[in-house]
Amino acid sequence: MSDLSKRILTNETRNRVGETVKISGWVHKIRYLSKITFLLLRDRKGIIQCILENEWLHFKVENESIVEIIGDVVESKKQKLGVEIHAKNIRIINKSQGDIPFEINQSEIKAGMDHVLNYRTLSLRHEKSQAVFNIQSVISHLFGEFFTSHGFTRIFTPKIVSQGAEGGANVFTLDYFGKNAYLAQSPQFYKQMMVSSGFERVFEIGQVFRAEEHHSSRHLNEYVSLDVEIGFVEDVHEIMNWETELLKYMFTNVNLQCKDELEKLGVKLPLITEIPKITLKEAQNILWNKYQKSSPEGDLNGEGEKLIGEYMKEKYNSEFVFITNYPNATRPMYTLPSKNSDLTESFDLLYKGMEITSGGLRIHEFEMLINSFSNKGLNPDDFTSYIETFKYGVPPHGGFAIGLERLTANLIGVANVREATAFPRDIQRLIP
Amino acid sequence: MSDLSKRILTNETRNRVGETVKISGWVHKIRYLSKITFLLLRDRKGIIQCILENEWLHFKVENESIVEIIGDVVESKKQKLGVEIHAKNIRIINKSQGDIPFEINQSEIKAGMDHVLNYRTLSLRHEKSQAVFNIQSVISHLFGEFFTSHGFTRIFTPKIVSQGAEGGANVFTLDYFGKNAYLAQSPQFYKQMMVSSGFERVFEIGQVFRAEEHHSSRHLNEYVSLDVEIGFVEDVHEIMNWETELLKYMFTNVNLQCKDELEKLGVKLPLITEIPKITLKEAQNILWNKYQKSSPEGDLNGEGEKLIGEYMKEKYNSEFVFITNYPNATRPMYTLPSKNSDLTESFDLLYKGMEITSGGLRIHEFEMLINSFSNKGLNPDDFTSYIETFKYGVPPHGGFAIGLERLTANLIGVANVREATAFPRDIQRLIP
Repeated sequence: MSDLSKRILTNETRNRVGETVKISGWVHKIRYLSKITFLLLRDRKGIIQCILENEWLHFKVENESIVEIIGDVVESKKQKLGVEIHAKNIRIINKSQGDIPFEINQSEIKAGMDHVLNYRTLSLRHEKSQAVFNIQSVISHLFGEFFTSHGFTRIFTPKIVSQGAEGGANVFTLDYFGKNAYLAQSPQFYKQMMVSSGFERVFEIGQVFRAEEHHSSRHLNEYVSLDVEIGFVEDVHEIMNWETELLKYMFTNVNLQCKDELEKLGVKLPLITEIPKITLKEAQNILWNKYQKSSPEGDLNGEGEKLIGEYMKEKYNSEFVFITNYPNATRPMYTLPSKNSDLTESFDLLYKGMEITSGGLRIHEFEMLINSFSNKGLNPDDFTSYIETFKYGVPPHGGFAIGLERLTANLIGVANVREATAFPRDIQRLIP
Repeated sequence: MSDLSKRILTNETRNRVGETVKISGWVHKIRYLSKITFLLLRDRKGIIQCILENEWLHFKVENESIVEIIGDVVESKKQKLGVEIHAKNIRIINKSQGDIPFEINQSEIKAGMDHVLNYRTLSLRHEKSQAVFNIQSVISHLFGEFFTSHGFTRIFTPKIVSQGAEGGANVFTLDYFGKNAYLAQSPQFYKQMMVSSGFERVFEIGQVFRAEEHHSSRHLNEYVSLDVEIGFVEDVHEIMNWETELLKYMFTNVNLQCKDELEKLGVKLPLITEIPKITLKEAQNILWNKYQKSSPEGDLNGEGEKLIGEYMKEKYNSEFVFITNYPNATRPMYTLPSKNSDLTESFDLLYKGMEITSGGLRIHEFEMLINSFSNKGLNPDDFTSYIETFKYGVPPHGGFAIGLERLTANLIGVANVREATAFPRDIQRLIP
């Protein structure tokens, strides 16, 4: 006999055959036959079939209501769980008012993206959404775990900034007690400052804000950035190696920890071994020679990224590829130039043909930094607290950042990054 | 013979007596005697003495420059590390320009708080600051680890909100593509919505923003909130138990993982066993009867919190105390009222006489929620996406939030929360 003061979860019933237990959750579906009623109860671990007979045969309740059921666990080979519950008592804890805008108990939600997002707290109840955000939770935890285990310090840097913004038009502005302030587009300056402050190796998991007027399936105006910055590095390959090791660790452990979720989504994750690297020049040549596609000066466009993704998958069986050696002209002012060339010690990482990372080495010498700001047409006086840091001994360093929602979306194989964002923010959407 | 292509850390030299090694870091201090020069090199793991003789005797370098030293590891009983380095080669990697605004190599930084914060990337290099933020990093990781291990989902909820703000005057406003938006004062609504979305148990680590015009040592306008929300709970004591277990886990593991840091700060952490609970009424009575202090209606003031903290320490030897049963009038509109009284199922947690947590049960029934909003003079129509959720089956739930900087500051025993904030934001400060 179980302790009936304590609820158990649906997946725990398997080990309780013959016992009376208490379960609670949402009414997933209810079906009335003449002599038997089937109530499917859903909790965070899954769905269990409950048999309602006799006095409970005509029990009325709307789908999505919260109920508590006390009943016997009975073996049932037909059920995926291997057991079902024969109800002895049912109590409605919080009833749903009904009129749900779409069905949650079908294999897919049959509604457009806008409708799905308008009723987000309902659409998230679908088992596939549950899987997506449980995987995302694991990914973000693994990120912290990996770097913590390698002696990195987790940092928290301000999101309301004045000089901290990298500049450009795509900043959200706000009034800060009568002063102009911005929402941080990235923790770039601050993570470099923390490296220089003696922490050497730092990471941050936090929101970043981009006031870009995109209408696209791959852009958000607020997203979560997994940021890393590493001091005392020798070269840019060291940074790419860190990212490779991180991704290996993540994929291995997502495979181990999210078996059920991956199965529900029909996703099979590859094990990452090495990630191929090609220069931007090589990538552009492949696009031209093999696909007759030209690329923008010093960059790839979305179509180019997609094609390079396909090419690398075909040729090297890799879903990932590092694109390296971007020219100075298309990288930010803090990027370390390569010696004797107009290229930089930088890279992007494509995953399934979509950029999920920018990274590289940074300038660590004061004079070079001042010149780089000036060469980009920026006034160093607008960035004094960042630039002053470089007067007082900054080690060679570099780092990278991964967009969490893009990584998740690609990993589970959805086309729209909003499906991997609990409450997306885009040019139209501020609610919920 | 070590691999001289790889830097080792100062604390790793202990196991390399007799070997030639490469170390690098900041020049902490340099002292010239007639036949010998002492250079103290600092990296993220500590400080090591390097002996410069012969051709290196007159080596010139400014404090805080980045240098790389190749030398022999020699046993030295006088050194705390037990070893020192006899330099064979020194290379300046990035020189400091000197004129440092305060000394970093003294036992304390001799400068006012404002100066310390103005030159934050320098003041953070002090070994005590290093200890503070390494402890903070561990605290935040332990928070995630504890809840992950108990089946919680880590969530990321938007910081740019429209209806998500709890209202009141203390919100930062911004223009969001022509619409009015706010910075989230807390993830309160969203974490409740995620519980109701089927995740049941969620946590978030993220920034919150309060546009309060405080000038105080305990308030920040942007801080990190450790948020938890738990569905299917029976009573408010369950929530307090979760927080107690969390704090036990944190303190035990900070003690284990941050030995060096705690020692540097001269902090001895108590082991938490149980946390005493008293009602607000009892606390107010103690203040009146023992200290002749009156309290504000339905609350404690800062002085009252401090005195209650001292009282509980003296009487129960506990640095923590839960204050429970706040009246409806002084708690937010989502707070669950107690049955047949004007009190609520709520609590605060004081740590060393400072509030670090508010928590409690929340209203989960639609009608009660609508009424509560109305009774507080709020228009439910301004909160539709939150309130609509409660039409469709929300389980009983509750939670709490801990301010990371306050927790850290109290744990290490500093009076000003800014000392536990890398880049604080207050009414005067937006830089760095």
